[in-house]
Amino acid sequence: MPCPIDWGPGGSVRILDQTRLPAEEHFAELRTVAQVAQAITALRVRGAPLIGIAAAMGVAIGPARSVADVEASCRLLRATRPTAVNLGWALDRMLGAARAAEANGGALAAALRTEADAIWTEDVAMCEAIGAAGLPLLADAGEVLTICNAGRLATGGIGTALAPIYLAHGRGQRIAVSVPETRPLLQGARLTAWELSRAGVPCTLITDGMIASRLARGGIACAIVGADRIAANGDTANKIGTYGLALLAKAHGVPLYVAAPSSTFDGATPTGGAIPIEERAAGEVRAFGASSSAPAGVPVWNPAFDVTPAALIAGYVTDRGIYRREELPAFFAGLA
Amino acid sequence: MPCPIDWGPGGSVRILDQTRLPAEEHFAELRTVAQVAQAITALRVRGAPLIGIAAAMGVAIGPARSVADVEASCRLLRATRPTAVNLGWALDRMLGAARAAEANGGALAAALRTEADAIWTEDVAMCEAIGAAGLPLLADAGEVLTICNAGRLATGGIGTALAPIYLAHGRGQRIAVSVPETRPLLQGARLTAWELSRAGVPCTLITDGMIASRLARGGIACAIVGADRIAANGDTANKIGTYGLALLAKAHGVPLYVAAPSSTFDGATPTGGAIPIEERAAGEVRAFGASSSAPAGVPVWNPAFDVTPAALIAGYVTDRGIYRREELPAFFAGLA
Repeated sequence: MPCPIDWGPGGSVRILDQTRLPAEEHFAELRTVAQVAQAITALRVRGAPLIGIAAAMGVAIGPARSVADVEASCRLLRATRPTAVNLGWALDRMLGAARAAEANGGALAAALRTEADAIWTEDVAMCEAIGAAGLPLLADAGEVLTICNAGRLATGGIGTALAPIYLAHGRGQRIAVSVPETRPLLQGARLTAWELSRAGVPCTLITDGMIASRLARGGIACAIVGADRIAANGDTANKIGTYGLALLAKAHGVPLYVAAPSSTFDGATPTGGAIPIEERAAGEVRAFGASSSAPAGVPVWNPAFDVTPAALIAGYVTDRGIYRREELPAFFAGLA
Repeated sequence: MPCPIDWGPGGSVRILDQTRLPAEEHFAELRTVAQVAQAITALRVRGAPLIGIAAAMGVAIGPARSVADVEASCRLLRATRPTAVNLGWALDRMLGAARAAEANGGALAAALRTEADAIWTEDVAMCEAIGAAGLPLLADAGEVLTICNAGRLATGGIGTALAPIYLAHGRGQRIAVSVPETRPLLQGARLTAWELSRAGVPCTLITDGMIASRLARGGIACAIVGADRIAANGDTANKIGTYGLALLAKAHGVPLYVAAPSSTFDGATPTGGAIPIEERAAGEVRAFGASSSAPAGVPVWNPAFDVTPAALIAGYVTDRGIYRREELPAFFAGLA
């Protein structure tokens, strides 16, 4: 599968434009911080971990005469999307690297490139570790339910929610995935179905309204979803629809797991109520790709995320192992 | 609003082609039984009560030299869609009218036209009665949640689930509707948002995955949905997504009502498990209109309906009043 992000020629960031999938595999060369910011805002590059990597690489290709330059890049990038904490986390690391380089008299540009590479490399390793941690959940699993895309296209590596699935499939285990299309932007249909199909992992596409019927039909061993921000109490912001999926899974006795790297855990946010939820343009709901699907002026509510209360989450599949809600204080203590 | 069905010139059935809404108001003249059957199969005319009316009108414009002709028409129409019981109910009435006319030496064609008109006229009256029965649910309701389209476009009259809403709005009550778009065929976005907007009823369009968040946000007084078939025990087949909506409403303490005319109650089907659920083509899920949304060959599961257990239904809003589940035996006894 093509890498969703890479360094490009001439000091650019090369991204696989995810808004064009699955119809075409188009790569865009982003040459300025503003172009990277635009790509994040427009979801050409998306997924909480990948947004963090893209932002870090964006800072690294930006002006670097002084820490003030880096601060300006970070301000621009930080304003793109509010919900995924990985964005701010990566930018804080870039700022720290810049300040350390300046304090030590080192070359700012080189330090930024090194830190961005480190963020990317660490994400690859965290994806692998999440996969390994989640593997035991899939012993004789049969079929797993997910939502949106928390796979290779959302990270620097093999994904978060999909990481255990890729590892199980690679070992020859029988595994299949139920993929809700995830309106309005169809990341399930366009991205998850695409990357699973390319990897040869059996998957079945359903609409979001079919989740309850799919659960009632039986054979779903567990649900695994990604996360955009996990608050200190375990409440989790993720793609709109996750909260409903969690309630429906509970009603059918199916455990729901949240898979995420350490960079998605936000100890500074006490509960889900304090997580900022991005609301996006009405046009995303009134249309379906190029096709208008609703009367032109009809009012729309379009929150891009929802918050799943920790009580609905059976466990957190992290790069440090699986944690139950009661164990989260120990997990956060380990991050500090 | 234009009438979704009418008699056309030269012995035709004139339908508003619902697959073309909201982009264009296109009327089609159906001149043969086969054309009516095709229009039902393709959802150019849809909604359980309206399917019954369309099928009856289809029989009335068909060959009528003998009861055998009518039987042939009914066979063709009965095979179009399996889930909505109104279809078989209307065809049985047409067959009965044909046999009675033949037995009495009456004109078959005139008897068929009279019976089709009666089915239509009765549906108009049942919609009004459903609206009146449901009105008390909306006293100071604020906002109502529905799904799919159970309005004017689904019936011969003012709708089923939307009937109380139209009556409340007409009385000057403050009322608003949350409308899930209802994938895959977007009857919420294309049809419900369209007809409510035209009637001046405030509505807000959401995606199906936002239902749980909308309920959590508060202010939803009740959910009212239509039905395609109500079994003797109260289990209800309706548009895919209704079962999930019912579970989510229950989780938020919001009562769910099913609104339907007597013709949708099927005492011959004991429970929801015995209701045939139509599965439709994969292409409906992989695309909308001209826009492909998923990899070409990805497997799809596309049940058009689901079954909501009676235990999740607070009441049945019928043309004979509101019935609780425990009262359904009395309701069915009244139909016999």
